[in-house]
Amino acid sequence: MIPLFTRRRFLDLAGAAGGSAAIYQMALGLGLIPAAARADRPDLAPLGARRRRRVVILGAGISGLTSAYELGRKGYEVIVLEASHRAGGRNLTLRHGDLIDEIGNPRRCEFDPDPDLYMNAGPARIPGHHTALLGYCRELGVGLEPFINDNRNAWVQDEAMFGGRRIRNREYITDTRGFIAELAAKSIKPEDLAAPLTRGDYEHVLAYLRSLGDLDQSFKYRGSLRAGMALHDPSAPDVLKQPLDIHELLQSNFMMNIMTFGEGDDQAAMMMEPIGGMDQVVAGFLRKVDQHVRLHAMVESVQVKERGVRIVYHAQGVRTVIDADYCLSCIPVHLLSGIDNNFPADFAAGLAAVPRGKLFKIGFQMKERFWERENIYGGISWTSQDIQQLWYPAHGIHRQKGVILGAYTFGPRTGEMFARLSNEQRLELAIRQGEQLHPGYRGYVEHGVSIPWVRMNNMLGCAAAWTDELRQQWFDLLRSPVGNYYNIGDQMSYLPGWQEGAIYSAWHALADIDRRERQNSQPAAA
Amino acid sequence: MIPLFTRRRFLDLAGAAGGSAAIYQMALGLGLIPAAARADRPDLAPLGARRRRRVVILGAGISGLTSAYELGRKGYEVIVLEASHRAGGRNLTLRHGDLIDEIGNPRRCEFDPDPDLYMNAGPARIPGHHTALLGYCRELGVGLEPFINDNRNAWVQDEAMFGGRRIRNREYITDTRGFIAELAAKSIKPEDLAAPLTRGDYEHVLAYLRSLGDLDQSFKYRGSLRAGMALHDPSAPDVLKQPLDIHELLQSNFMMNIMTFGEGDDQAAMMMEPIGGMDQVVAGFLRKVDQHVRLHAMVESVQVKERGVRIVYHAQGVRTVIDADYCLSCIPVHLLSGIDNNFPADFAAGLAAVPRGKLFKIGFQMKERFWERENIYGGISWTSQDIQQLWYPAHGIHRQKGVILGAYTFGPRTGEMFARLSNEQRLELAIRQGEQLHPGYRGYVEHGVSIPWVRMNNMLGCAAAWTDELRQQWFDLLRSPVGNYYNIGDQMSYLPGWQEGAIYSAWHALADIDRRERQNSQPAAA
Repeated sequence: MIPLFTRRRFLDLAGAAGGSAAIYQMALGLGLIPAAARADRPDLAPLGARRRRRVVILGAGISGLTSAYELGRKGYEVIVLEASHRAGGRNLTLRHGDLIDEIGNPRRCEFDPDPDLYMNAGPARIPGHHTALLGYCRELGVGLEPFINDNRNAWVQDEAMFGGRRIRNREYITDTRGFIAELAAKSIKPEDLAAPLTRGDYEHVLAYLRSLGDLDQSFKYRGSLRAGMALHDPSAPDVLKQPLDIHELLQSNFMMNIMTFGEGDDQAAMMMEPIGGMDQVVAGFLRKVDQHVRLHAMVESVQVKERGVRIVYHAQGVRTVIDADYCLSCIPVHLLSGIDNNFPADFAAGLAAVPRGKLFKIGFQMKERFWERENIYGGISWTSQDIQQLWYPAHGIHRQKGVILGAYTFGPRTGEMFARLSNEQRLELAIRQGEQLHPGYRGYVEHGVSIPWVRMNNMLGCAAAWTDELRQQWFDLLRSPVGNYYNIGDQMSYLPGWQEGAIYSAWHALADIDRRERQNSQPAAA
Repeated sequence: MIPLFTRRRFLDLAGAAGGSAAIYQMALGLGLIPAAARADRPDLAPLGARRRRRVVILGAGISGLTSAYELGRKGYEVIVLEASHRAGGRNLTLRHGDLIDEIGNPRRCEFDPDPDLYMNAGPARIPGHHTALLGYCRELGVGLEPFINDNRNAWVQDEAMFGGRRIRNREYITDTRGFIAELAAKSIKPEDLAAPLTRGDYEHVLAYLRSLGDLDQSFKYRGSLRAGMALHDPSAPDVLKQPLDIHELLQSNFMMNIMTFGEGDDQAAMMMEPIGGMDQVVAGFLRKVDQHVRLHAMVESVQVKERGVRIVYHAQGVRTVIDADYCLSCIPVHLLSGIDNNFPADFAAGLAAVPRGKLFKIGFQMKERFWERENIYGGISWTSQDIQQLWYPAHGIHRQKGVILGAYTFGPRTGEMFARLSNEQRLELAIRQGEQLHPGYRGYVEHGVSIPWVRMNNMLGCAAAWTDELRQQWFDLLRSPVGNYYNIGDQMSYLPGWQEGAIYSAWHALADIDRRERQNSQPAAA
């Protein structure tokens, strides 16, 4: 998923004063840089044979499963209470027959029963530096394959340019950059160069601009093979495409982020996805902890005690009370605030203060992989319409059918708009908008599923939508334990909306429990 | 493979006079644009029951196999003579036990017997617009998966900057672009904008530069998350990396092409490769034509006759004469010129006039996938050293072992240099240079294979190294039939070094044969 709110602001605010070196120095000063500060995977001390610790984990999302796995293998007694019919939380892969548990509108996924026909309704990609998640994938035997963000053959369709006509991403990026590089080469003078650049670097700057824009020897942009050819025919000489009109291209500032989307910290190639669906991560954890997970278990009360936590839950008509030494909860904090509890007032206020993201996705089973006939294999098309993106599968290439993501919208306005519609209205709107990218689109649709996260049962939203202000006010408080109770989940990280954030939140809490347990096991001072 | 010589020159020369619109108009004038000009896959007229046509195909490379498949299914009698021990030509995937048929130095590949441990020694990637090859993959059941060129986590190591210290590709690209975008934003004035840009576009240009370089609100580059973070720890606030020194970065003009390599016409994502190795394409064709292929068949003579072609070949001690109606040859033309023939003098001169590429590759079986611990999954690291590139596999993720490409050099000088060394010397040099990118590299190497295409038996070079001058002088002549004899192969295309070029060359010849056969089958004029 895309982080809803940029995490960059924190340091940007500081950096505004003194430039990037200042940012770095500030970070050093804060002790953020040294490797020792890093929240690595905690190596929990095993409980001795005589020590027994019971930990209740509320929610079988990725942070809950991580906690159960780490604690269970070190001798802790673990009970995972999960309100829904399945483990995984927002790690949700939809296949034939799966329940789409939207409040007031539960329905089944009608994709054909076929292992290639699935939709990752929550997280869908893993960058190569998400070492925590990748480490568990390795350890738990979760097979991985490449995921593709950036496909230069995919479409860009922006109502602000070319009358809304679709153009190839490779033309959009190449032609815009070519013209601007030409303009820069014309405008930059040797005297514009300031330290650390030298006068001698002027030629290097020009050479760079030529390479950046694919300019000719006189620094003109005359079109580029990077934009694709007018005609693919290797038995004849190349025919360059005529460059698009730069004035039109520049009207598309609304969409400029897509020109660099695939270069983002968490989005740059090579990205990965589990073979067979993101919920293979859940399956991997469950191979280790399934016996500890109780589904359909609705938590009714969380009471922090002097030496532990008392949980009351309801499952299959039975009310059960558990007294635990520790409690870790990845229940979305805005839902937790509605459950009976005895948290301090400020902590309880914080639970209710953090809003949630409103991501919305649609998946369509298509009876033909028509996009492959348009030379599109994997990747994303972009549109200024509400559906925002179309994703094409990078697996199952050249099979008859495929599931594409027919909408992925992360703006709160469109997320709300889609959520207010009926399932049928959502699909109809997405089909109509999809036609702007792929004429004839409607004719390929066999089944559609819509996932409005704000209306999904036991969720009512997706990632915590932290702002800088909210974070400053509440984050440390909500992440600090109340007695032996801990909030976890991607909501308790600086990377909401990513499984990596969820894992780190669990590690953070587990390290604290481990610290306390190690202290407890010390012989009393003489 | 990378085309050895840019195909762009042809139109560049014309374009220099009048800009890109002129190029396009010229192309229109040449009749290159209309779809009718396109050399689509020929739909050969089936031979009637009474007509028999024998076609001898010299060489079981991709163009030869394409020809055999297309002709065979339309009723032609097909005989494919292949000099080597295997079909496929330069489509060569090396696995456990395979012969590396270097002249004077034949040896075996000692990779472990494991389906994930292979090396594509020839072509290794397929772009999404290579519709000819992709069409056969679909038709012949060749499974495909993504191939990764661009990995921002991979390394760039350039002796011209930072004293040869490796840096991450994401820093190399992001920091350079950020500083130059800042410089451009500072230098470009509203009055620099010329039509079709308007004064009103000035703000758009600035917005574009901000997006391009990830500049701050005052158009300063202060570092970017695109360059990665100083520390990956989602439980703490982000820490930007300190930007690298732009003066140092700009010294690397030698390597600037790598900043846009992954955007090339034939290199931009999403690229593909066959699951299990590129030779699955060969296997796909052989499922249709294996019965027609004679291995170890050395052609001794090609004699064009008035109504056909006589071929003499030698196999297993037996000399055989075949009289065929047609002959298609993908024998490298510089080797063909040494075989007894009766071609016209100018044609024979042309055969000897086209030089060959000198690509060189090394594959290393590594006992650990150490690169994955450096967050590198798939893609390419670049170095200014002779080995030029390291490729990491995008398949077999998180397994114990992997095969990486330890050298891929396409400059003729380095290709020759490596070819002159013994196999052991080549591997030693590549290991020593690899250490600059991955300290400890040597310790991971289990087996190495080197492929100097200039010394490979029955090849003595790879793709035809056409220059504009050579092409103008010889290409049309060599592609025109001599009687019923045709040269084919990627050498007879505008896309040498790519299987797509090979297929189109076959289609070009087959269309001509079909035209002649259709004429022959017309009833005589009354």
